[in-house]
Amino acid sequence: MTVQTIEVKLSESKGEKPLAEELQFGRVFTDHMFIADYCEEKGWTDHRVVPYEPLTLDPAAIVFHYGQTVFEGLKAYLSKEGKIRLFRPEQNMRRMNQSCERLCMPQIDEEFALEALKQLLIVDKDWIPKAEGTSLYIRPFMIATEPYLGVAPSTKYRFMIILSPVGSYYKEGIHPVKILVENEYVRAVDGGTGTAKTAGNYAASLKAQEVADQKGYSQVLWLDGVEKKYIEEVGSMNVFFKINGEVITPELNGSILEGITRKSIIQLLKHWNIPVIERKISMEELKEAHANGALEEAFGTGTAAVISPIGEFNWQDEKFVVNEGKTGELSKQLYDTLTGIQTGTVEDPFNWGVEVN
Amino acid sequence: MTVQTIEVKLSESKGEKPLAEELQFGRVFTDHMFIADYCEEKGWTDHRVVPYEPLTLDPAAIVFHYGQTVFEGLKAYLSKEGKIRLFRPEQNMRRMNQSCERLCMPQIDEEFALEALKQLLIVDKDWIPKAEGTSLYIRPFMIATEPYLGVAPSTKYRFMIILSPVGSYYKEGIHPVKILVENEYVRAVDGGTGTAKTAGNYAASLKAQEVADQKGYSQVLWLDGVEKKYIEEVGSMNVFFKINGEVITPELNGSILEGITRKSIIQLLKHWNIPVIERKISMEELKEAHANGALEEAFGTGTAAVISPIGEFNWQDEKFVVNEGKTGELSKQLYDTLTGIQTGTVEDPFNWGVEVN
Ligand SMILES: Cc1ncc(COP(=O)(O)O)c(C=O)c1O
Ligand SMILES: Cc1ncc(COP(=O)(O)O)c(C=O)c1O
Repeated sequence: MTVQTIEVKLSESKGEKPLAEELQFGRVFTDHMFIADYCEEKGWTDHRVVPYEPLTLDPAAIVFHYGQTVFEGLKAYLSKEGKIRLFRPEQNMRRMNQSCERLCMPQIDEEFALEALKQLLIVDKDWIPKAEGTSLYIRPFMIATEPYLGVAPSTKYRFMIILSPVGSYYKEGIHPVKILVENEYVRAVDGGTGTAKTAGNYAASLKAQEVADQKGYSQVLWLDGVEKKYIEEVGSMNVFFKINGEVITPELNGSILEGITRKSIIQLLKHWNIPVIERKISMEELKEAHANGALEEAFGTGTAAVISPIGEFNWQDEKFVVNEGKTGELSKQLYDTLTGIQTGTVEDPFNWGVEVN
Repeated sequence: MTVQTIEVKLSESKGEKPLAEELQFGRVFTDHMFIADYCEEKGWTDHRVVPYEPLTLDPAAIVFHYGQTVFEGLKAYLSKEGKIRLFRPEQNMRRMNQSCERLCMPQIDEEFALEALKQLLIVDKDWIPKAEGTSLYIRPFMIATEPYLGVAPSTKYRFMIILSPVGSYYKEGIHPVKILVENEYVRAVDGGTGTAKTAGNYAASLKAQEVADQKGYSQVLWLDGVEKKYIEEVGSMNVFFKINGEVITPELNGSILEGITRKSIIQLLKHWNIPVIERKISMEELKEAHANGALEEAFGTGTAAVISPIGEFNWQDEKFVVNEGKTGELSKQLYDTLTGIQTGTVEDPFNWGVEVN
């Protein structure tokens, strides 16, 4: 995506904005979207902000058949002063390019894509909800559009950004979730696509999530696909454990996604002089730490919930409750700090917040 | 998909049919397509044959983001008597349902889907090319259409069948291909989606295929994702080896696709009293069999090429040539028999051929 002008075509009508208390996740979209098109000869062209509307695609478009697509997820907040705030958005654009590389898709110009996002946000600023814990979820994504049934990278792509106002992840304040440890299904292995934010990883996860739902668990904890022994990550969160005062998170092993929340938490903990270590950790070790009382807290981290305390694990029908099923102190402190930085109410020592002017 | 009537809306114009010698794979589509829509409340409705045209989908449709989609691939041939012939199409519909099950997608009525395919073929019969080795490639597929960014199975789907006239896989007669054995990337593991015909498996394969292309190899041979030791399958083919008069193919281990050509070849070999065995086979074993002259033939099997003799493997930069790089006798015999059954010129002991009336 080379630097070019962005054409803006405003919508003639404005959609109705949902009430704060009716906000869900990813069901309602704003009035506009950003689009750019790619073909091999011309690169990225036709950058435009246009009214949100259906896409028209050939039934043979590669995305439908071979899943050549990547996406990102981040949020915009409205500060008390009425400014649009983003959290480390350049990290999402960078990760998008890393995903593209794995999927044989063209690179975007990260700075220009961020510029496009800002323009879109200015156009749809009214859509950013104001109530505590609410935000505007941002979904940049790229799809392969060439109509061709051969298994080969597309020569045509579309990059888009759509926006969705979302409610607070915690309707009654931050509270712990119950997690089912998955022993049968596998999300990703080293050499696969687990480090990329691409559709197939999520398609692969649906079945396990369905089983978890039926058993009353809100998410699945994935183990490594080789030995089904080491902890990888939760459905759409990375995972941390506080054991004997030390914070442990699975190392980047080639099959888990490098979360931006994960990265930020590691930096924050270091800044606070709390020991944090990235290494392999097995379910067996977790079970032992729990048995001898050393497991103090467990939490997931990701854009949607920011911090999601884990109150219970179920591993092979054995349940173990963490911190009496209550939100741990560190989890709470991390949640307050990160959401504070995101909304601009807490000091931002790393300059993670980006204001849109 | 319950049994309902199929509405037919004919196209007002007819597309230009490519010349036999210009036929490629999956680039040109016929005048019509079949569509059915699904929602949770009503099940499958609106079965229709309509002019081939672009789809209109919300940018938030689940298929774009989480790859909830499955597909099939089979071929229609024109017999000498001018009849439309299919090869074991009920197997494709069954496998489609198995893929749907893994991807949390609704089942189709297999018989009705086959009926729909037949109606579509009758409408577009003129598109079936007649030259030796050519055929009409059939692509049934199902996509998740609900606009929702939560990672959950869609509540709305579309099932479609599109058709593409394709050229002979072997322009100058059947000839062997060179295969690169993949040591870095992984296609699928047990517990993943490898047994399903779903988009993410193919997206995951693009990078390795790109590397193979650059090195002058036409396809990738996948090893198991756990030990990278045992042979799984080729890009879109299952694989067979003739060693010391015995035919060996990797067993169905939870990560490879159960090819319909594979299944048919096993049946044919048994029928011919040629020993055939499904079991684990490692690259090490293959290398040894090659070194001591026991490896007589190797070939891939799949709908596109039917039989694809393998003339050379490259494993960790070591090359080994099979049968002097020539098509083996058994490969040729299987190719002639299967294509003969498919086009109706050879006796069909298992009644695999299905004629459309
Ligand atoms: C598989 C997976 N892991 C982890 C994460 C957390 O990443 P981030 O903190 O960047 O949102 C996400 C969600 O984005 C995810 O989809
Ligand atoms: C991954 C994979 N393996 C094997 C095959 C061969 O299956 P079939 O013989 O049913 O075409 C295919 C193609 O369909 C495939 O995509």
